[in-house]
Amino acid sequence: MYDLIIVGGGPAGLTSAIYSLRAKKKVLLIEKMIPGGQVAITSNIENYPGFDSISGMDLSTKMFMQANKHGLETVFSEVIEYDIKSNIKKVKTNDGVFEAKAIILSLGASARQLDVKDENKYIGHGVSYCATCDGNFFKNKNVAIVGGGNTSIEDCLYLYDIAKEIYLIHRRDSFRSEKTTLEKVKTLANAPNPKIHILTNSVVKELKGNNNLDSIVVENKITKQTSELKIDGVFVAIGRKPDTELLRDVIELDENGYIITDENMSTNIKGVYAAGDVRKKSLRQIVTACSDGAIASFSVNSYLATLS
Amino acid sequence: MYDLIIVGGGPAGLTSAIYSLRAKKKVLLIEKMIPGGQVAITSNIENYPGFDSISGMDLSTKMFMQANKHGLETVFSEVIEYDIKSNIKKVKTNDGVFEAKAIILSLGASARQLDVKDENKYIGHGVSYCATCDGNFFKNKNVAIVGGGNTSIEDCLYLYDIAKEIYLIHRRDSFRSEKTTLEKVKTLANAPNPKIHILTNSVVKELKGNNNLDSIVVENKITKQTSELKIDGVFVAIGRKPDTELLRDVIELDENGYIITDENMSTNIKGVYAAGDVRKKSLRQIVTACSDGAIASFSVNSYLATLS
Repeated sequence: MYDLIIVGGGPAGLTSAIYSLRAKKKVLLIEKMIPGGQVAITSNIENYPGFDSISGMDLSTKMFMQANKHGLETVFSEVIEYDIKSNIKKVKTNDGVFEAKAIILSLGASARQLDVKDENKYIGHGVSYCATCDGNFFKNKNVAIVGGGNTSIEDCLYLYDIAKEIYLIHRRDSFRSEKTTLEKVKTLANAPNPKIHILTNSVVKELKGNNNLDSIVVENKITKQTSELKIDGVFVAIGRKPDTELLRDVIELDENGYIITDENMSTNIKGVYAAGDVRKKSLRQIVTACSDGAIASFSVNSYLATLS
Repeated sequence: MYDLIIVGGGPAGLTSAIYSLRAKKKVLLIEKMIPGGQVAITSNIENYPGFDSISGMDLSTKMFMQANKHGLETVFSEVIEYDIKSNIKKVKTNDGVFEAKAIILSLGASARQLDVKDENKYIGHGVSYCATCDGNFFKNKNVAIVGGGNTSIEDCLYLYDIAKEIYLIHRRDSFRSEKTTLEKVKTLANAPNPKIHILTNSVVKELKGNNNLDSIVVENKITKQTSELKIDGVFVAIGRKPDTELLRDVIELDENGYIITDENMSTNIKGVYAAGDVRKKSLRQIVTACSDGAIASFSVNSYLATLS
């Protein structure tokens, strides 16, 4: 019986582990792939405080080793069932059932992809799923943003002071986004010599280049006309998918599948906490995930203290 | 005219700077002492994800240089007046008045001290103001916790699995703390061969040792009797003081002087944000301060986008 099981070894989970192990709790981490989660496949990180520039794999490894130094136990296995409503939390994996008094769900969320040929090849070389993370790599370059929700509109404004030309590509004819920022984008797009170009009813059909992305082919869904745009970076903002399929009937989720927590990372089930990208929150960054992890660990300590 | 003035160069302020500069905003940091704030005077940090062990000065310097790499302007000066209610935020310092469209207050909070001889000498060598930060350095050692509020009680439970003997020292005869955790501490203190020893109506009169703390002298305020306890670490939990004197009639503060924000770090004044230890929050750690800084910067971006 563990004090705490952490499911998911990204920055949130690893920070929870570091904090809980330093508090001398018996901790098990369950990770299905490799430590770091989404971060491990990020080529270059410049906005995690303390490192000018570091690869996602290096940063993940550092955090994982740091937790190991404090005595982390890890099982590399996939969770297949959660039985976490009672006081004893049971997590069933392909490698057996593990039990703990408390659980932190740091399951992450993966970006939805364009589903275009060579998309994976260009990740880190022109294709990004996070403007706040990677925008700075496209100073005075031409970029495209794909999507029609809040994120695509915010990305547009975020990239406005950075990029040279911005193409906002959306498959529908109108945007479902917060009004003020949308109006701002439209005003900028309607100015003389605009830097923002809005392409509605349009989809990306092709990514072209050698090692790095050079251009994209966009099709207008109504006219069926295609055009090739010289583009250095495509920011895909068509949504994220939290890995909460197994939790659908177990825990309170929002309409997009994110786990709902309070600011102490508590879910609606006693002894169950969520941290990082998997929870409903406004900004998904490595450092905000780490912060969630620290807070969740702190909440677990308080919870464990109340158990007799 | 700057896009953003950040007041206070601790982890929250520096992270705001890194994020806002990468978003190509014109940013000024105003810092009265040295970058890093409280962190700069911390000898060893083991719980900031990414570094097994690093001095506070080194970590602060890394964050400051990282911000500088992105073009940070810094003025080393003390703020003497805030005029931030209008759209243009004016910050008056000993070195002139600076103006910006938005402001992030990352002013920090300093721990209240015992006010006992040699207290400063033993900081990092037996005297600590943060059990979550430094508790792990006192594995199987004897510690004292000074204070009677929530923090002292939580520290008691936090250190319970780490330390050998715990002396909880409080100057009054009863604790003003959340009930459940207080009951838990009292139960542990009343168990046979207890590890927790509660000393009420007691104050620390003296700190003794050579390079490291060896013992403390405690006085019972009623009997006037003194006793010397073999103690390796004293955790001072008698409150913190946010540096918000100048903001008392400017912005909404809680009863302890902390700035009240929502989860996006917005204060009650448009265009004014707070981040880090200075705001009302549950867990004050380097990584939670950094997270606040990132979120505040993100909110500033959205706010700047709405200005015409």
